[in-house]
Amino acid sequence: MNIIDIINKKRKCGTLTDEEIKYIIDGYLSEEIKDYQMSALLMAILINDMDNEEIYSLTKYMADSGEKLDLSPLGDNVVDKHSTGGVGDKTTLIIAPLVASCGVKVAKMSGRGLGHTGGTIDKLESIPGFTVNLTEDDFLKQVNDINVAITSQTENVAIADKKIYALRDVTGTVESIPLIASSIMSKKIALGAKKLVLDVKVGKGALLKNINAARRLSNLMIDIGKHNGIEVICILTNMDIPLGNNVGNALEVKEAMEILNEHKQGHLRDLCVELSSYMVALGLNIPYEESKEKVLNNLDNGLAYNKFLELVKTQHGNIDELPEESNKYEIKSKTAGYLVDIDAYKLGILSMSLGAGRENKEDTIDYSAGIIVNKNINDYVNEGDVIMTLYTNKEITNVDSTIFKISDKKIEDEKLIYEIIK
Amino acid sequence: MNIIDIINKKRKCGTLTDEEIKYIIDGYLSEEIKDYQMSALLMAILINDMDNEEIYSLTKYMADSGEKLDLSPLGDNVVDKHSTGGVGDKTTLIIAPLVASCGVKVAKMSGRGLGHTGGTIDKLESIPGFTVNLTEDDFLKQVNDINVAITSQTENVAIADKKIYALRDVTGTVESIPLIASSIMSKKIALGAKKLVLDVKVGKGALLKNINAARRLSNLMIDIGKHNGIEVICILTNMDIPLGNNVGNALEVKEAMEILNEHKQGHLRDLCVELSSYMVALGLNIPYEESKEKVLNNLDNGLAYNKFLELVKTQHGNIDELPEESNKYEIKSKTAGYLVDIDAYKLGILSMSLGAGRENKEDTIDYSAGIIVNKNINDYVNEGDVIMTLYTNKEITNVDSTIFKISDKKIEDEKLIYEIIK
Repeated sequence: MNIIDIINKKRKCGTLTDEEIKYIIDGYLSEEIKDYQMSALLMAILINDMDNEEIYSLTKYMADSGEKLDLSPLGDNVVDKHSTGGVGDKTTLIIAPLVASCGVKVAKMSGRGLGHTGGTIDKLESIPGFTVNLTEDDFLKQVNDINVAITSQTENVAIADKKIYALRDVTGTVESIPLIASSIMSKKIALGAKKLVLDVKVGKGALLKNINAARRLSNLMIDIGKHNGIEVICILTNMDIPLGNNVGNALEVKEAMEILNEHKQGHLRDLCVELSSYMVALGLNIPYEESKEKVLNNLDNGLAYNKFLELVKTQHGNIDELPEESNKYEIKSKTAGYLVDIDAYKLGILSMSLGAGRENKEDTIDYSAGIIVNKNINDYVNEGDVIMTLYTNKEITNVDSTIFKISDKKIEDEKLIYEIIK
Repeated sequence: MNIIDIINKKRKCGTLTDEEIKYIIDGYLSEEIKDYQMSALLMAILINDMDNEEIYSLTKYMADSGEKLDLSPLGDNVVDKHSTGGVGDKTTLIIAPLVASCGVKVAKMSGRGLGHTGGTIDKLESIPGFTVNLTEDDFLKQVNDINVAITSQTENVAIADKKIYALRDVTGTVESIPLIASSIMSKKIALGAKKLVLDVKVGKGALLKNINAARRLSNLMIDIGKHNGIEVICILTNMDIPLGNNVGNALEVKEAMEILNEHKQGHLRDLCVELSSYMVALGLNIPYEESKEKVLNNLDNGLAYNKFLELVKTQHGNIDELPEESNKYEIKSKTAGYLVDIDAYKLGILSMSLGAGRENKEDTIDYSAGIIVNKNINDYVNEGDVIMTLYTNKEITNVDSTIFKISDKKIEDEKLIYEIIK
């Protein structure tokens, strides 16, 4: 077997065998297969696609390429959740305690942020004292005791996936549905998930720009799930605008608390309710309507917020000492009209430049920095109204004025949830 | 402009602009664009193709990426020749003096061999004393004086093409017709060719396995030629079996002399006559029939051989001191029947292993080593007949017995020349 023959086979629309895919993953990890060979193969896969059998093999060997977690001692009401990524996505901060308060176990391993997207672990670390490095034993014990724990993902899970993802990022080979599906599912398999709700984002702020691509990705991840004994529900959600009003670590923790404790309404809450309802339905094996009622009740009666406080306290966080915003800059509208668009990507880049995110892996984060968007879509904005507020310890030079669009006409209210596939 | 956007564009079947192609070539040479990015782009080009405008741009920037030669002081009867590669292809050794003897100027820059294919420069260096490193001035002066000179190609011609070709070789991206065409033509443009005969090989021993691919490549090279003021004739030839009987450097010089001086007949001679006739027709601007008569005459009357001796002497070679074969091993047929196939690729690999070629760039060559195939296609072979003779200074362990096929039926005589495109 050699890599040139395998590249040629895929280039000619051939189907790779299980042995060939094993050879690729082993060879790439041992550096016998070079980056420039892997990227040629990835491009051939992106253009010529893979069938389900190929995708199962790829997922399997990537899942097997690192450490694995066994969650079976926790019982069968453990549910995981994953989002295909976005700006201002603090849903985990809300959903994890909310779902746990309904009697479902949430054993969540999360990552850090890079570039324009944030990471749950960074957000939690903005709470002074919050420990994100639980040992495997402590992690499992905590889930057993209080139904929820969030810890940072070990570097050693699905390492082939990590290496391949880093290469895809710099070679224009990200947008392959087989590669996206196998990347997500290989990690979930390695992390021991058995029940999984996937938030598949669609729209200009997301990896997938159209609903058909999102449907195929969803069906594929459900198939990979079945093949590996994982029950998967996919929720296709609109990602044209950022989720909620706050971007930045401590600011996002505050917004999560507003939803859990202060009945803040809007898209972010709606999405958390939907995702949580499907997670609870899956975890407790009850109808969706019943689980949705539970979820709404626990948001109203304070049980979800109490679970949030319990989670923070158990992981040694001090929620009363969230860092205060430093300098404040108000960005005012130069025209009047309806706010019809907020560019999630540009907002993420701006937030990073304020100190809230990392441009490079080594960068340190200013947990207090970030942005509050003071208006919502279709709000009327007068000339001179504050449209967003920036918080930072850095000098601000210029702010991209194309982040927002103001128009004299409202836009049609867009759907938040497109469809559910299971 | 950035490389990821360009890769994405080609991946989605877009057409790259002249500026984008310049950016690619400049960036790859300056190493801002990495090998793994270039190989992803090359795969996208291989699968999604390029149109003529893209190919003209690619050819131009590769031709411009190194030194250029100006042959215009030599006048307008200079003709170049190129073959898309093969095993035992010693045509240049025969054609260069033959065409020069007809009054056409041949200013030939050639390369060295690597892997299973040989190089004209190595073959000439097997003649003791033969100088292959002519200065540009000496090279042009010699062509002016005796109509022919052969020198080794400088490392600095079309350096972008060299770098890209090396990458294609290890990433399964060789078989792209736009990339093959632009690679060949960029070198020819840089070397100052104005009239060019191309030997486009088709068959299982060649890069192009079928006639349609060879036709497209030919038409493309003719178009690139027109676009750059170069008159191109393509001759599509059969490359299912090796050319001639000898493989190995000094052995191939000897076979060239047998054709020039001893009236040896066969495919190799026939091909040389065809290629030479088109070169002479192009160089002297005369009809093909007239030039073919000239070519056949000069083979018969010794003028071609005299020109060969003059070429060798002018470049300080001593043809009487060709290295003698060292050890000789006769390979005998184990069965009786007609010889119906000789695997050119395997023959090339065997010859290399005997010392006649380089596995790696740094390897030194044993000029005396090589193979003489003692039988021709459709010859009857008795059990125990010598089918080939190996010459080497190395220990011989085992010889691949699948190089030859013996059958109880002759095969149909295959065409040598499929068609001419101009």
